[in-house]
Amino acid sequence: MMNTQLTLTQMIERAERYFPKKEVVSRTSPSKIHRLTYAQIGKRTRSLSSVLEKLGVKRGDRVGTLAWNQHRHLEAYFAVPCMGAVLHTINMRLSDDHLVYIINHAEDKVLLIDEDIVPIIEKVKDQLSTVTAFIIMTDKETLPETSLEPAYSYEALLVTGDENYPFCNDIDENEPAGMCYTSATTGKPKGVVYSHRGIVLHSLALGLADTKGISESDVNMPIVPMFHVNAWGIPFASTWFGSKQVLLGPNVTPKLICEFIESEKVTATAGVPTIWIGVLKELEENTYDMSSLRLMICGGAAAPKGLIKQYREKYGIPFVHAYGLTETTPLLTVSKLKSGQSDLTEEEQLEIRAKQGMAVPGLEVKIINEKGEAAHDGKEIGELLVRGLWIADSYYKDDRSKESFRDGWFYTGDIAAIDEEGYIKLVDRTKDLIKSGGEWISSVDLENALMAHEAVFEAAVVAVPHPKWQERPVACVVLKDSYRNAVTKDDLLSYLKPQFAKWWLPDDMIFLEELPKTSVGKFLKRELREQLKGHLKPSV
Amino acid sequence: MMNTQLTLTQMIERAERYFPKKEVVSRTSPSKIHRLTYAQIGKRTRSLSSVLEKLGVKRGDRVGTLAWNQHRHLEAYFAVPCMGAVLHTINMRLSDDHLVYIINHAEDKVLLIDEDIVPIIEKVKDQLSTVTAFIIMTDKETLPETSLEPAYSYEALLVTGDENYPFCNDIDENEPAGMCYTSATTGKPKGVVYSHRGIVLHSLALGLADTKGISESDVNMPIVPMFHVNAWGIPFASTWFGSKQVLLGPNVTPKLICEFIESEKVTATAGVPTIWIGVLKELEENTYDMSSLRLMICGGAAAPKGLIKQYREKYGIPFVHAYGLTETTPLLTVSKLKSGQSDLTEEEQLEIRAKQGMAVPGLEVKIINEKGEAAHDGKEIGELLVRGLWIADSYYKDDRSKESFRDGWFYTGDIAAIDEEGYIKLVDRTKDLIKSGGEWISSVDLENALMAHEAVFEAAVVAVPHPKWQERPVACVVLKDSYRNAVTKDDLLSYLKPQFAKWWLPDDMIFLEELPKTSVGKFLKRELREQLKGHLKPSV
Repeated sequence: MMNTQLTLTQMIERAERYFPKKEVVSRTSPSKIHRLTYAQIGKRTRSLSSVLEKLGVKRGDRVGTLAWNQHRHLEAYFAVPCMGAVLHTINMRLSDDHLVYIINHAEDKVLLIDEDIVPIIEKVKDQLSTVTAFIIMTDKETLPETSLEPAYSYEALLVTGDENYPFCNDIDENEPAGMCYTSATTGKPKGVVYSHRGIVLHSLALGLADTKGISESDVNMPIVPMFHVNAWGIPFASTWFGSKQVLLGPNVTPKLICEFIESEKVTATAGVPTIWIGVLKELEENTYDMSSLRLMICGGAAAPKGLIKQYREKYGIPFVHAYGLTETTPLLTVSKLKSGQSDLTEEEQLEIRAKQGMAVPGLEVKIINEKGEAAHDGKEIGELLVRGLWIADSYYKDDRSKESFRDGWFYTGDIAAIDEEGYIKLVDRTKDLIKSGGEWISSVDLENALMAHEAVFEAAVVAVPHPKWQERPVACVVLKDSYRNAVTKDDLLSYLKPQFAKWWLPDDMIFLEELPKTSVGKFLKRELREQLKGHLKPSV
Repeated sequence: MMNTQLTLTQMIERAERYFPKKEVVSRTSPSKIHRLTYAQIGKRTRSLSSVLEKLGVKRGDRVGTLAWNQHRHLEAYFAVPCMGAVLHTINMRLSDDHLVYIINHAEDKVLLIDEDIVPIIEKVKDQLSTVTAFIIMTDKETLPETSLEPAYSYEALLVTGDENYPFCNDIDENEPAGMCYTSATTGKPKGVVYSHRGIVLHSLALGLADTKGISESDVNMPIVPMFHVNAWGIPFASTWFGSKQVLLGPNVTPKLICEFIESEKVTATAGVPTIWIGVLKELEENTYDMSSLRLMICGGAAAPKGLIKQYREKYGIPFVHAYGLTETTPLLTVSKLKSGQSDLTEEEQLEIRAKQGMAVPGLEVKIINEKGEAAHDGKEIGELLVRGLWIADSYYKDDRSKESFRDGWFYTGDIAAIDEEGYIKLVDRTKDLIKSGGEWISSVDLENALMAHEAVFEAAVVAVPHPKWQERPVACVVLKDSYRNAVTKDDLLSYLKPQFAKWWLPDDMIFLEELPKTSVGKFLKRELREQLKGHLKPSV
């Protein structure tokens, strides 16, 4: 067969050729919405490649982006890899320390920065050792005031570029196309490199009818940020398959999400549970037409069963669990019913949907514990291991690789059970499991049960050191506004009681105004654990 | 990223693991229907691998099959490539001469033969120079009488095999997995080799929502034979994604097809136009419940517009054009409407559906003529060239490779136009185009117009040598039974007149009882041309 390489150039070229009139809707600020066609995006992408080349970016060089979900970021998604360079998407919410570390560690040569993020980089600019140019992605006609040097206006550069720039045509599919850093339990973030081949195969997987089925008829609006594992790969697949894209820019609120789903007739969207908890609240307060939605993907953390139930039953929204990690590009599983399972009761179906789903074609999974490989019986738990077509094999120039990548498998750090049908159920992160008197308690199970209570907005359960039992669970709960002061700790404990073994019940329940979250919206349990370190006294 | 290879082993292993109870329905004779689960198919497949190994089949050896669509053939589809050998599917309808040629040319070591095909091989057995074993796929308990030597019973061998046989785990994705010979305009058939990588990527393409969207919830019944380009890849994708499969065995009639669609609730089926012309006739005469069908794929040749229209409008069956060739694994295009196009009039939509569609992701196409690359304006025509992830780069040990594979492209031998939206319209085979007075006439356009006439069952238009104009079109027409002797040549010519330029109209119209067809059901125009060589006299 022909030795055709799996590279990103074919994606953008296909959009240019077959979907020139299809739109990308991009909100760069609360007041500014752009509408560009793929024909325009294609020309601008080629211009950007040519401009980066003039700025000295060479094959294999890293180009960093600090940007929200918007069209210029999408242009960089293709312009950088399709000239043979490497797209390094950076989470601008990291600490200054970590930002400096990853930019220097990746040796970024050029940074593309959204205007409102410029101050963050200005603060640390003197510590950046490899950056030779800052390109500011502003809507303004002139370059905003900045201490970055040399600084360029994205649009001003683009008009000097070559909109017919030919993309690199000899890229080997195993060359790096992108990279993303993931936070570590301790120490500096760890870098993951994505090859062209990995991203292309992952994109094919996203188009499968049995996964997300991304197609030409879709209007895709990823809420997950483009600096977070390539917005789960959605911009790549959407461009290749010719979907309309909606990119929401900065300051995304539940209200904004609902408004855009309604006005742009969004068919598929994706985000973390905290986003969908917020959107549910918005739907309870205001009315929107959500009928265009065929898929609301929830990933990044396990969604509470109550959330799934409410979306599906109350609003008829096809809320679907997916699961993956930075190291896995990220798609590992999608939780859809198998044929025949639609004959099950609502409750049984919900039980399946609340799991993370089956490994998608191209991947293999297993769970291991101290006894070896665990049975797929839905009961035995162990650390989830994965291998396959778009799984990383190491961290970028990082000695910690050998802890996570062993014997050809990636050790996810997630504790899971796998049932007879192959559905994975995440039990916890290795580090979030609670070890009480030698037995494991799943913080996720307790959280999901709590969040299924009508009064509970959010809940996180963490391990707190205990003199006798080693660790005991403590629940941190945010009540819905209308239930503030109307529900007590005992109410919630009585509610949990019939659902769990007695020794699983939290030793305490703390009501908070809000839960601390990571920069991508996951509960920051590490911080809660830190705060609650001395909470349980020997007398308890 | 991990160096995971794109090999077929993952497909069957996934079916075993995730879909053990899903069924394969197999009709091996008019009176015998088998129902096996993927758990059973998996064990039997592994047994078959182990048995072939014992018979001396080694890495890279070719194993030939002469069989209908049935479960043992499906087992061979995986047992052979997953042990590192090469599956050579053989069209048993070829002439003895061609059969001998391809078996010897491929150097098949073992042949797997359906019982009713044994006599065909017995006739030529003394000319086979490389075959060391004949395995007869019979339902009988004992081996039928045969002069083949050594001959084995498939089932008897299987019970001696190892149902836990571990598939080869170090196959390189570029190793050959299968091969299929295609007939040549002149000379012996030409062999095409499919790599593991090519078949896996092709299978991913078949699962895309925008192509065939093959999924777990499907009941797939390919009518296209498993000896013809791997039944268009459907058995591979169906197994990988866990679809139920229905394999119809020998002596497939329109009635049988309709009965199985109804009884097995088939969701997707695929065949050549002549099959669907027959099924349409059956539907006009008898009533069936076809409501389970979500996709009726028509490929192998251009379907007449009238056929598409009748299926869609009269029976509400989603009849979809696809196009490909033996050299292209085969999927090249699928003709679906783009979003927005569903707002067009019925007639405009039909116009699009009657085209072959856009190149699927992973492939590139262009058309060239004597002036170079032709414009994509829907008007300029030229030979269609294709390249991409599952396109052959040569014929197996064949000097004719250099005619068809040049400059990194495969020259399809098909004449096509491509419109602004990227839809390909086949105009003709290079060799079927009619050159009249220096201008091209499309035989396919004339045929499609004729077949849209209510009285016409089938029509083929061929070039007949003409002393003045070089070539002129002559139409060969089969009328529907109820119209026999009720429609004249002049009726049909008057019907064509308003639709074509005067010089396009056929010089003669010949009524036949039936049209000669190739072994895969395409019109055998070569034979008609041969018969009509002297048909047009100088005086005409």
